[in-house]
Amino acid sequence: MNANPKFLGAAAHVDEAAIAPLPNSRKVHVEGSRPDIRVPMREITQSDTPALFGAEKNPPVYVYDTSGPYTDPGVKIDIRQGLAPLRQKWILERGDTEELPGPSSAYGRARLEDAKLAQLRFNLQRKPRRAKAGKNVTQMHYARRGIITPEMEFIAIRENQRRDALSESITRQHPGQSFGAAIPKMITPGFVRDEVARGRAIIPSNINHPESEPMVIGRNFLTKINANIGNSAVTSGIQEEVEKMTWATRWGGDTVMDLSTGKHIHETREWIIRNSPVPIGTVPIYQALEKVDGKAEELTWEIYRDTLIEQAEQGVDYFTIHAGVRLAYIPLTAKRMTGIVSRGGSIMAKWCLAHHEESFLYTRFEEICEIMKAYDVAYSLGDGLRPGSLYDANDEAQIAELKTLGELTDIAWRHDVQVMIEGPGHVPMQLIKENVELQLKYCREAPFYTLGPLTTDIAPGYDHITSAIGAAMIGWYGTAMLCYVTPKEHLGLPDKSDVKDGIMAYKIAAHAADLAKGHPGAQIRDNALSKARFEFRWEDQFNLGLDPDKARQFHDETLPQEGAKLAHFCSMCGPHFCSMKITQDVREYAQKQGVSEQEALEKGMREKAEEFVKQGGEIYRKA
Amino acid sequence: MNANPKFLGAAAHVDEAAIAPLPNSRKVHVEGSRPDIRVPMREITQSDTPALFGAEKNPPVYVYDTSGPYTDPGVKIDIRQGLAPLRQKWILERGDTEELPGPSSAYGRARLEDAKLAQLRFNLQRKPRRAKAGKNVTQMHYARRGIITPEMEFIAIRENQRRDALSESITRQHPGQSFGAAIPKMITPGFVRDEVARGRAIIPSNINHPESEPMVIGRNFLTKINANIGNSAVTSGIQEEVEKMTWATRWGGDTVMDLSTGKHIHETREWIIRNSPVPIGTVPIYQALEKVDGKAEELTWEIYRDTLIEQAEQGVDYFTIHAGVRLAYIPLTAKRMTGIVSRGGSIMAKWCLAHHEESFLYTRFEEICEIMKAYDVAYSLGDGLRPGSLYDANDEAQIAELKTLGELTDIAWRHDVQVMIEGPGHVPMQLIKENVELQLKYCREAPFYTLGPLTTDIAPGYDHITSAIGAAMIGWYGTAMLCYVTPKEHLGLPDKSDVKDGIMAYKIAAHAADLAKGHPGAQIRDNALSKARFEFRWEDQFNLGLDPDKARQFHDETLPQEGAKLAHFCSMCGPHFCSMKITQDVREYAQKQGVSEQEALEKGMREKAEEFVKQGGEIYRKA
Repeated sequence: MNANPKFLGAAAHVDEAAIAPLPNSRKVHVEGSRPDIRVPMREITQSDTPALFGAEKNPPVYVYDTSGPYTDPGVKIDIRQGLAPLRQKWILERGDTEELPGPSSAYGRARLEDAKLAQLRFNLQRKPRRAKAGKNVTQMHYARRGIITPEMEFIAIRENQRRDALSESITRQHPGQSFGAAIPKMITPGFVRDEVARGRAIIPSNINHPESEPMVIGRNFLTKINANIGNSAVTSGIQEEVEKMTWATRWGGDTVMDLSTGKHIHETREWIIRNSPVPIGTVPIYQALEKVDGKAEELTWEIYRDTLIEQAEQGVDYFTIHAGVRLAYIPLTAKRMTGIVSRGGSIMAKWCLAHHEESFLYTRFEEICEIMKAYDVAYSLGDGLRPGSLYDANDEAQIAELKTLGELTDIAWRHDVQVMIEGPGHVPMQLIKENVELQLKYCREAPFYTLGPLTTDIAPGYDHITSAIGAAMIGWYGTAMLCYVTPKEHLGLPDKSDVKDGIMAYKIAAHAADLAKGHPGAQIRDNALSKARFEFRWEDQFNLGLDPDKARQFHDETLPQEGAKLAHFCSMCGPHFCSMKITQDVREYAQKQGVSEQEALEKGMREKAEEFVKQGGEIYRKA
Repeated sequence: MNANPKFLGAAAHVDEAAIAPLPNSRKVHVEGSRPDIRVPMREITQSDTPALFGAEKNPPVYVYDTSGPYTDPGVKIDIRQGLAPLRQKWILERGDTEELPGPSSAYGRARLEDAKLAQLRFNLQRKPRRAKAGKNVTQMHYARRGIITPEMEFIAIRENQRRDALSESITRQHPGQSFGAAIPKMITPGFVRDEVARGRAIIPSNINHPESEPMVIGRNFLTKINANIGNSAVTSGIQEEVEKMTWATRWGGDTVMDLSTGKHIHETREWIIRNSPVPIGTVPIYQALEKVDGKAEELTWEIYRDTLIEQAEQGVDYFTIHAGVRLAYIPLTAKRMTGIVSRGGSIMAKWCLAHHEESFLYTRFEEICEIMKAYDVAYSLGDGLRPGSLYDANDEAQIAELKTLGELTDIAWRHDVQVMIEGPGHVPMQLIKENVELQLKYCREAPFYTLGPLTTDIAPGYDHITSAIGAAMIGWYGTAMLCYVTPKEHLGLPDKSDVKDGIMAYKIAAHAADLAKGHPGAQIRDNALSKARFEFRWEDQFNLGLDPDKARQFHDETLPQEGAKLAHFCSMCGPHFCSMKITQDVREYAQKQGVSEQEALEKGMREKAEEFVKQGGEIYRKA
């Protein structure tokens, strides 16, 4: 039952460079009200300010850490064993679930019993769990009953990122413009509970994915990003996908969607979930379609239902379900420039047309809710009719579907099932705000989860940028999670380098959105980095950034000598002149006079000016 | 007097790949009212729609072309000769300029007479020109006298990009939100004149740079981008800078700023201007500082004045002049996180403090105007006190300087000198709009020319992205030209690859802004590309994009076979299933029935559904 050494042998010796802590960074844990609530953060230490600028100590900066145990040198990583199930005890304590004898989906059982798959299979000893009869195990259900779960407390600590521990000067920031979002100065566990109860936030946390570190998606919290991975019929294997997941979370992916469509979807997913510290999402219709050899018209509710249970018992945390693609909306797409570009949407459109029947995702929606609440899988209600080009943005089909998603949200909420709403992929800037406003209205503030959006269609190869523009804006307006777009969008499947490029573009967008909303503490890292930059603390500047490796590499391309990282100049102006250096002279001069610059001017600065010239007015002075 | 073969020999045989026409592209010229008004455009031809989708012809798409004669196979490129002086006849015809016997700046003469520089010197036979005594040769002066210059007519044709020649379906676009910009459906020469007369647009067009193809900067025209190049004391040479200029204009740079600070600034600039099809900007204080060995306090008005004349007679089209850095504003920066980060601003700050005197750029502003109007050099009034971090954004120092720039605009306009206003580099999203509103108000709608802005400080190595977000937004709100930021910003000097990355990010931002403003015809290229994408015309999709090379390369990484570019699927879903293909089935089905989909539904689609299944409902059908 062990993984085949030929197939996954390399994984036992994971690439150390890919899991080493980032430079000057250390994994710390903040303990909650009980010792097993240990919230991970990345602590970035800084060097002291050079004497030239006042020789002050610079406190460490704490940043949100999605990388899980991988970057913790105290944890031995063996992807054949998977991660430790940190939530397992909490789940068991609640006493509302039961262990199953094995997978209860027919397909899950068949895969388990297929001896030919032994070499591909993750060696999971644990049995799947399900809610006891009559029980509802969603975080929303607990929240609505007033319960603060350990997950909620974990999240409150995580969202605060120790910002209370820092000085006022480093936390100071511009007032935000929040468009109705209301983020408290400090997040409390009770606030998390209330937001989840209200449906304004979700905690994707399948009881069969106890390895995941709790996180929240809602517009009154930090803006999150999702990274898509997954093989297709054309390319890619299990090992590569697990590596992409690890890689994506290393750089900041808050959730990962496994969009695999090729062979061994079931086994690939198992490996990913068992090793993932972040929630995993899927689009179950992709796998259901594989089960009918790609013939959409042969899909049935029974096959789909079995797929939901199969995946829920593996631990998928949220399902994209395109239940808003109703039969009557399909003709609304006929005059589009780019028709239906959502894969899930087009599968269901094909099914509906072939059968001339309403989509079973819509007609069976309450039955799906019953499954979701037995495992705490969250809905990500898919926008199957989203525009595939600017031309089609905000059209009748899109808006009709959005209204339906609002109705389905109400139904899900009646079952205390968590819901987020997927949003469009191609929208010119002037139409972005309307998208958010309509979503908030129709879906009563259920978290919005948007792909991009791309703000122009003319840059294939650069759609991480065309869409980071839209993502930053839509995040500011109120989107809770941004689904990344890589440079390969529309052209090919992302490799590890593309995954990182996509993550970086989206970490930027999400953070720019948090700053614009005025998320308390959002500017701490910007302030710290700016201060390091001004004081020529090159190493700190690299390390406080999103990608220390790239920053260092770029710096070294121009000034490779190690000494240049101690230099009080940079390559843009060269050693003979530097604008930052001059500003320091200005400031130092003002300080030396023992008066403020304004006073100095008022007293008449001629005399002082002479002193300045006499002192040399030099660009260089010893540090 | 010829260029040294050792030094620039390679340039005689320019890299053919760097000047070859882009794929399926051809340089065309649209003739104006006289045969020497020949406006270049890039015509991108498209293949026919495959039979499967209706076998229609797709018209060529015309795009704005900044690459000059380089991409014209009919022109022999020899950078030792420079480009043909296409505006020379127009300048001479006006009869208001005179040829000088040689450079009238002392420095210009000294460099010309220095035998040691012979091997570096561009071999210019033409003598510099200047306005005749009492004459004003600015485009603004002509415009205010009601004259439509050939430059203005050229620009009107160029801005329209033959959008009147295209069908309504391909030009259709969403209404824009223009924030007071008012772009006519078709640009007329008279409109160009009126905007220039009003000061709302400028045409950078030094009479000593007759090689440049006229272009306009103003918020009622296409949003433009600038690329910075230039060597520093640390790195880079003449040949490399000329190549960067050619490279920057190949990919869409509308103007280029030469920010060289190292040796041979004068000679480098000459080579760049003589070979540049786009306006060249500089920051003259950089060179003035070199002349006093980097000692800011030793700068004098006389040295600076001579530098302005030296550069004006070489043909620099606009000068960044930090005349708003007034003595009284300098202390306002003392409590900033990052002080004064503008190099020009900090030079002047140092000078002001050392002398305890008002900046000579401010006190001599009218004298500078006299120089500007004698050559038609435009002001780019520099924001020497711009924030260098989000922390410092929109502070008192920045706003005080902006008001002064408004006063200086009025003075320049009294001299009929063209003006644009430089804008800030680090601004969180929620403060961007305020920047534009204040600029439009204080500077009475003089064109705004902004660096970025960067919307977060936490991503060194990715500041082309942090700033493309801000650039797209500020362009939408009304910025006329966006100064690019490369991935190397804050870290090192951009190489050719960084220049291209910066240009791409900014072409995206500028185009996204044009779309959002509702610039007539902006969406044509998006529509054409989306249509090509939907119809699986892979080659057209690549070629209509900003970077055909990268798009093709990305596609081929996943599906390298040539046949894959004819395939009716893409690597994201693989050959067995494709959402676009399904949509085509939906649409084709609707068409075959001879009724609209809506009608089909109303008539009862059960019967038709059966036909569909009987036909196979297949994903593949022969094209």
